[in-house]
Amino acid sequence: MPKIAAIPGDGIGKEVMPLGVQAVEVVAQRHGLDVDFEWFDFANVEYFQQHGQMLPDGWQSQLGGFDSIFFGAVGWPQVVPDHVSLWGSLLQFRRQFDQYVNLRPCKILPGITPPLRDRGPGDVDFLVVRENTEGEYSNAGGVLFEGTDRELAMQETVMTRIGVDRVMKYAFAQAQKRRKKVTSATKSNGISITMPYWDSRFEAVQSDYPGVETDRFHIDILAAHFVQHPEWFDVVVASNLFGDILSDLGPACTGTIGVAPSANINPTGEFPSLFEPVHGSAPDIAGKGVANPIGQIWSGAMMLDHLGAEAAGREIETAIDDVLRAADPQVLTPDIAGQGTTETLGQAIIDVLRKE
Amino acid sequence: MPKIAAIPGDGIGKEVMPLGVQAVEVVAQRHGLDVDFEWFDFANVEYFQQHGQMLPDGWQSQLGGFDSIFFGAVGWPQVVPDHVSLWGSLLQFRRQFDQYVNLRPCKILPGITPPLRDRGPGDVDFLVVRENTEGEYSNAGGVLFEGTDRELAMQETVMTRIGVDRVMKYAFAQAQKRRKKVTSATKSNGISITMPYWDSRFEAVQSDYPGVETDRFHIDILAAHFVQHPEWFDVVVASNLFGDILSDLGPACTGTIGVAPSANINPTGEFPSLFEPVHGSAPDIAGKGVANPIGQIWSGAMMLDHLGAEAAGREIETAIDDVLRAADPQVLTPDIAGQGTTETLGQAIIDVLRKE
Ligand SMILES: CC(C)[C@H](C(=O)O)[C@@H](O)C(=O)O
Ligand SMILES: CC(C)[C@H](C(=O)O)[C@@H](O)C(=O)O
Repeated sequence: MPKIAAIPGDGIGKEVMPLGVQAVEVVAQRHGLDVDFEWFDFANVEYFQQHGQMLPDGWQSQLGGFDSIFFGAVGWPQVVPDHVSLWGSLLQFRRQFDQYVNLRPCKILPGITPPLRDRGPGDVDFLVVRENTEGEYSNAGGVLFEGTDRELAMQETVMTRIGVDRVMKYAFAQAQKRRKKVTSATKSNGISITMPYWDSRFEAVQSDYPGVETDRFHIDILAAHFVQHPEWFDVVVASNLFGDILSDLGPACTGTIGVAPSANINPTGEFPSLFEPVHGSAPDIAGKGVANPIGQIWSGAMMLDHLGAEAAGREIETAIDDVLRAADPQVLTPDIAGQGTTETLGQAIIDVLRKE
Repeated sequence: MPKIAAIPGDGIGKEVMPLGVQAVEVVAQRHGLDVDFEWFDFANVEYFQQHGQMLPDGWQSQLGGFDSIFFGAVGWPQVVPDHVSLWGSLLQFRRQFDQYVNLRPCKILPGITPPLRDRGPGDVDFLVVRENTEGEYSNAGGVLFEGTDRELAMQETVMTRIGVDRVMKYAFAQAQKRRKKVTSATKSNGISITMPYWDSRFEAVQSDYPGVETDRFHIDILAAHFVQHPEWFDVVVASNLFGDILSDLGPACTGTIGVAPSANINPTGEFPSLFEPVHGSAPDIAGKGVANPIGQIWSGAMMLDHLGAEAAGREIETAIDDVLRAADPQVLTPDIAGQGTTETLGQAIIDVLRKE
């Protein structure tokens, strides 16, 4: 029986999490999979205000025994600066649990009009594979000569062979199950040390996957291609920062940024993996009951895949597609042109899952 | 009499430069401005193959006396790796001539259908102000434990108070002449040292410009907003890397990436400023005579602005608009759905300039 830690976090994370949990429970049960959710109320800013830290001491052992972490969203910048709340929670999970792959699917869904012209469901379907533990997010560096005209801030980007190779291999393995193409995001014409290093590892790794086609683009023109030719891409592998940018830009192009899921995977299985929507805590709409729960529910599908219940995962995706295709304005949330609520949209999807 | 160094560089740079020079000469003459172009054949890969370096020794004094540098494009990765050709030329100009502001206008032009739905000329018009000398493009770092499993590459991002403040002030001054809004591109929730530093300087600098509205977005969601809400932006100020990405992404959204201009400005006037199209040397279409010369010609308009001949600069922009609006397929180049050539399109614009 898979044990799952549910951590809603802040803002709309708290509102969408119950629907995500319910969707997973319903579909899992129909597939004879007994999932056991335990809820945790740390990793949010109220917890920080009470305890001066985002996570309890010993959180690693508290969570280490779970199969997965189902995560909402964290952060409330009016109260706690983002770099404090994020580095104190989400980024700790990713690092301490060595979730070195961040997976973000980008595709056009029925009923959601993408901002790009002349494109519909089926035209765009790619996967961003982001390095999730090192690179530009290093925390190494400091500020010198503070308060003077000479003041400067330095921060080290660190790419290890181990860290780069393993995420690239994961990307190639994903491509083998898809359309067999990997695109590398680089910037070796400007970032003159780490990025040529990234390129050299890409060349080394690709030689082990002769059946997979490759190309590479500098991040500036790659971002442009996401807008101009999103259909070119199958799997895109990128450093931590570039992957962060591309995995918001991709869903923006497909019109799915408010509903996209993501997985933070520890492929060895030594630690729990973490599943979360791409959207954040959204202070501007929090508390109104109108947050779109699809990102959380779709993340549940990725979690089921990871737990080996792919058929259940696909059922969730189909249920989402069905409800979007039906396009009932009373059901859909305002972000996708409806007048419904988190509850109406979430329950509509869960209803389909019950009947399937 | 302003002295201008014309450096065509590689690939299509050589093909579009003559049209750019001619356009500037024609319009300058009509405005009673005598411009004096001198051509240089370094900063290209043939030069590198003959001399083992991109620039001659003493290039600083050779070029230092010019008012401006009119630049084409550099690079031919099949022959010389990009980081060698770029760091040996363009990036040297930017640094040694302290061209600390990189300006890239993004707007929808008549006759060019942007990839975004439901938007036309007038709807989007913003300016990316990019830091151009420091930040992520530092060249400081190295590779350790080469050839072993411990191998790692490190590269320092360096942001100085002097470097950050001056480009932010420039951005605010630009906003004062426009719609009075500056957006800061940050990533302080993830990049935990340099980006909070960037934010703190933005707060300090903005207090000197009470009439200018500000906001800030993390680069991931900012990239998404460029696609979803490009009309939100007036002036966007960004670090070297973020500015690089945004200034390709912006023109991709407006459909102008093949024709966008840029200016590398040394605002003190101590050194020459440099004007170049955003597009690169484009090895895939080089030599065919079909490269679109508008980026080079529009860069000429930015150069005229810088030389104090704003009226002449506006005439170039109007001439470009006129020819695009006329939309004669025999005149336009293939990238904008025509069957014409570099020459037909360039001459059409120059003809308008002659008649104006
Ligand atoms: C060619 C490359 C080094 C350069 C940069 O990254 O600055 C280019 O992309 C640009 O934007 O001018
Ligand atoms: C909140 C932030 C630190 C985080 C990141 O940059 O990784 C987020 O943008 C994401 O992509 O999960």
